[in-house]
Amino acid sequence: MTDVHYPEHHDPARDWRGDSAAIAAISFDVDAEAPVLALDERYATHLSTMSHQAYGPRVGIPRILELLRRVSLQATFFFPAASAQRWPEALATVLDAGHEVAYHSHHHRPLVGLSDAEQEDDFHTGLELLRKMGAQPRGYRAPLWQQTAFTLELVRDAGLIYDSSLMDDDRPYRLGPAGDVAELPVHWSLDDWEQYAFLPEPDIGQSIELPSKVLELWAGELDAMRATGSLCMICCHPFLSGRPSRLRTVERFIAFARDCGDVELLTCEQIALRVLGSSPARCTRLVSKTESSRSSLRPR
Amino acid sequence: MTDVHYPEHHDPARDWRGDSAAIAAISFDVDAEAPVLALDERYATHLSTMSHQAYGPRVGIPRILELLRRVSLQATFFFPAASAQRWPEALATVLDAGHEVAYHSHHHRPLVGLSDAEQEDDFHTGLELLRKMGAQPRGYRAPLWQQTAFTLELVRDAGLIYDSSLMDDDRPYRLGPAGDVAELPVHWSLDDWEQYAFLPEPDIGQSIELPSKVLELWAGELDAMRATGSLCMICCHPFLSGRPSRLRTVERFIAFARDCGDVELLTCEQIALRVLGSSPARCTRLVSKTESSRSSLRPR
Amino acid sequence: MTDVHYPEHHDPARDWRGDSAAIAAISFDVDAEAPVLALDERYATHLSTMSHQAYGPRVGIPRILELLRRVSLQATFFFPAASAQRWPEALATVLDAGHEVAYHSHHHRPLVGLSDAEQEDDFHTGLELLRKMGAQPRGYRAPLWQQTAFTLELVRDAGLIYDSSLMDDDRPYRLGPAGDVAELPVHWSLDDWEQYAFLPEPDIGQSIELPSKVLELWAGELDAMRATGSLCMICCHPFLSGRPSRLRTVERFIAFARDCGDVELLTCEQIALRVLGSSPARCTRLVSKTESSRSSLRPR
Amino acid sequence: MTDVHYPEHHDPARDWRGDSAAIAAISFDVDAEAPVLALDERYATHLSTMSHQAYGPRVGIPRILELLRRVSLQATFFFPAASAQRWPEALATVLDAGHEVAYHSHHHRPLVGLSDAEQEDDFHTGLELLRKMGAQPRGYRAPLWQQTAFTLELVRDAGLIYDSSLMDDDRPYRLGPAGDVAELPVHWSLDDWEQYAFLPEPDIGQSIELPSKVLELWAGELDAMRATGSLCMICCHPFLSGRPSRLRTVERFIAFARDCGDVELLTCEQIALRVLGSSPARCTRLVSKTESSRSSLRPR
Repeated sequence: MTDVHYPEHHDPARDWRGDSAAIAAISFDVDAEAPVLALDERYATHLSTMSHQAYGPRVGIPRILELLRRVSLQATFFFPAASAQRWPEALATVLDAGHEVAYHSHHHRPLVGLSDAEQEDDFHTGLELLRKMGAQPRGYRAPLWQQTAFTLELVRDAGLIYDSSLMDDDRPYRLGPAGDVAELPVHWSLDDWEQYAFLPEPDIGQSIELPSKVLELWAGELDAMRATGSLCMICCHPFLSGRPSRLRTVERFIAFARDCGDVELLTCEQIALRVLGSSPARCTRLVSKTESSRSSLRPR
Repeated sequence: MTDVHYPEHHDPARDWRGDSAAIAAISFDVDAEAPVLALDERYATHLSTMSHQAYGPRVGIPRILELLRRVSLQATFFFPAASAQRWPEALATVLDAGHEVAYHSHHHRPLVGLSDAEQEDDFHTGLELLRKMGAQPRGYRAPLWQQTAFTLELVRDAGLIYDSSLMDDDRPYRLGPAGDVAELPVHWSLDDWEQYAFLPEPDIGQSIELPSKVLELWAGELDAMRATGSLCMICCHPFLSGRPSRLRTVERFIAFARDCGDVELLTCEQIALRVLGSSPARCTRLVSKTESSRSSLRPR
Repeated sequence: MTDVHYPEHHDPARDWRGDSAAIAAISFDVDAEAPVLALDERYATHLSTMSHQAYGPRVGIPRILELLRRVSLQATFFFPAASAQRWPEALATVLDAGHEVAYHSHHHRPLVGLSDAEQEDDFHTGLELLRKMGAQPRGYRAPLWQQTAFTLELVRDAGLIYDSSLMDDDRPYRLGPAGDVAELPVHWSLDDWEQYAFLPEPDIGQSIELPSKVLELWAGELDAMRATGSLCMICCHPFLSGRPSRLRTVERFIAFARDCGDVELLTCEQIALRVLGSSPARCTRLVSKTESSRSSLRPR
Repeated sequence: MTDVHYPEHHDPARDWRGDSAAIAAISFDVDAEAPVLALDERYATHLSTMSHQAYGPRVGIPRILELLRRVSLQATFFFPAASAQRWPEALATVLDAGHEVAYHSHHHRPLVGLSDAEQEDDFHTGLELLRKMGAQPRGYRAPLWQQTAFTLELVRDAGLIYDSSLMDDDRPYRLGPAGDVAELPVHWSLDDWEQYAFLPEPDIGQSIELPSKVLELWAGELDAMRATGSLCMICCHPFLSGRPSRLRTVERFIAFARDCGDVELLTCEQIALRVLGSSPARCTRLVSKTESSRSSLRPR
């Protein structure tokens, strides 16, 4: 049987949710041209394709910032360093508006195809670039939500306090031998890419769903998460959700979350700090039923 | 003309439905990492992909068990032996809660690509492993619902009393020369995979449908089946339907079935025992209109 | 510029619609195993796949016949000869119930990949087989709705009076130099395959839409066709629309059509006879605006 | 880092929207057989496929013209020259009805696969053909919305005043060093192809969405654009949206736009003339926050 090695899981600090039934976070991955050029650099001359991606920083980001200002919400923006380099004003306005900027790799290359050395180089070069431009990322999200065990080592060694790329829970947990990195799990169903991404050349998706469907999808999940005490990590892309009627769905989701009355909207960094808490006791790896206080199982 | 050889079909015991208009079963295929690793073992190092599959046993199963306990329903869990090996606690808690455990192959490999000898080896090794871990499977479901005539021989020879992998009826029947194996038919439209499975690497699906759509799909089929006297075999996967709002759809489907008033919810084993009944008379293979008491046709 | 040669179009007999605003036809393509085996004969040993296709003649056809009897409607069944050979009882019960049987090729092979000689052989052998089994087809539908100009010659030379495989109008017309073959146009949006077909091995489709969506799609088109005087050619497959809740959509569509009050439900043969009428004057090929009495254009 | 060179962007004339909250345009791309034959000329013998495309000029265009006449709306028709050559009557009736005819390449070949010389030849030959047939195109749209920087040079050098193929804004702008070409941006979500195109051979799409979904998609976007002061560029194809119930969605969208009370429906040429205005001041390329009067960002 093929062995699968999962990083160690530890419970989050007991009070990570405070008095809330569930926590929600609005995050934006500022991919822009990066994921397309990571597939093939020749797309740089495909003007229509490039323009499709450029909508994100050019139009989407200003509109998103205006929305967040209007509803007084702080959000988290994950920047590939390449996006910040191509669109320095995008990074600057996000920072100026007081939002959290987190790290989303250098070139948005799929990590699972890279050697550890290549991955390390991409990780450090991009992080350094982002820092030089004024950002102080505390967390990381892997391109395409594809990472290896080594990625988590890079995250920890760089002093980041959280990762947001895994899917084996919908509640945050602490990762690794020391439990000193918070995992803020994601899921395809809370991402706008699967609903809205349509581009034939290169093929990055073939879906154009109704914004009303997406609102029902996200609000329905958040509502159910109030019973499971989960983290509803919404992931949007400015080139997708920045479009007029889609941004309304983001706004309506925020309103829905606030109308719940028992849901708190936080940045990823705020959540990570709560999850890491005040040195919570480390879980043993021994698997017993009495141990399963979080009603979740562990692999052998 | 290419010959197609179907196993012999026999009517189920006359009273298999009792007084109910239709029968429904809730089954869970505990696939976890197995179908992904069956495609390529290198995915074991794709941490995000693995974590997506691990959600099933880690979080989905405990939540499903809690739901079933709350609504007092016994369900059937089909385990690949590999899933039981990787997540022994998952198997143990399912058994402890008194649910039926059935067999879903050793490694979730597509059977149609295997030689008979390979298929036989996979079948017996996995079944033995599951038995050693305390399960006593009475039925079988082929990975990907892909099987050959030889698979049915293995099922029968192993003393199992039912299979649940074919689609040529929506009412159970008895299979093979002796009619001593019950077939509990499945269908793509009553499976959650086609509605919810989204994973790009490897590509196991590209759908993220609304839980409300799935509820309408399943409840609509069950409702129509009350007129056809059919078996509504719901097939869920803990890594998919274990998510908060999707599990609500499972709960609502159960409530819908109960509200019908004339639908009975049973485990697969309970249905199989009814279908096999008290040595029902074997159907002849001769095709005549008067014979078609079940208003279904037979091939020449 | 690449030349495209369309067969000559002639107006249908002036009174083909009678007093109706639109005409609707319910047709069933009894594909069964044929389209799958036409892709690759090795699928004959894929028992689950074969069983998925066998649902059509085994369960779907009897239920469809029962529905048509209950609502007193005559429909048209297009049989590949191979389906009739494998399921002679299916053909017999359709004929016994007084429905129209039309011709759907011998083996459901894609015609555009065949030489004219191969196409001719497939056409005549299958038609002869169907006739020997008691059917008297008056019309033809190409497998996959893929045909060449030569196919139409075969149809005409065989003495058939209509074809139902083209898509350049939604009103019937007369085809060819003599205008002696009626074309009853089809369209993907009025077919159940695109909405319901799901099978991964081989991949014949990946859709599982709600029956309520399909009803809205078809009824909406028929409703709009009342203003355009069109033919609403519904195309169903027993292995798809024979499922319980899908068959309800067929029933509801029939009820909708009847509730319109100005829509007539006819068999394909009945429509073809009306379209061919009493030797309607042949249209000239000269293109002028005054000529466009049917408000449709003709290519140069 | 891969360099991406965007053409220079300039603000549109200040009063391009007049007193309207948003502007909408209804455009039709008269593709007919061209995009299919551009993939492979052998499809010319696939009669069913050709007939699917021929529906556009043969039936769709007359119905669209009738609708536009009935609602008294002037629209823009983008013609590949090849479509005009194959269907001269289609071009003639569109011109006769007083609609705008714009240019959509010669053969609907993907431009990004062509050398500059090939692209130039295709561009000029087709434009000349269209002009010889009586059209006076003022604007251009690239096949498949795929163009290169060189395409824009061809547009400008040919004396055209607008392009409509880019996606980096939803408000029109002025392009290039002199800002003398208006860009009227498009987007996949306002196109009917992604919603309705279904054709397996060749595969040009696999979607058959409900017209009611499309209406909600387009009307929802236009409604949201009233707050962002945008251009809602609807792009339809006669072979798709010419079908009865789909044309009703076009009609309902027009009614929705008019019911808004603050939306103006214009042709592309009318919009372009407004955007180019009376020699509006050229924007500097220097990027500063104070410069961002349109609340959009510019790349470095």
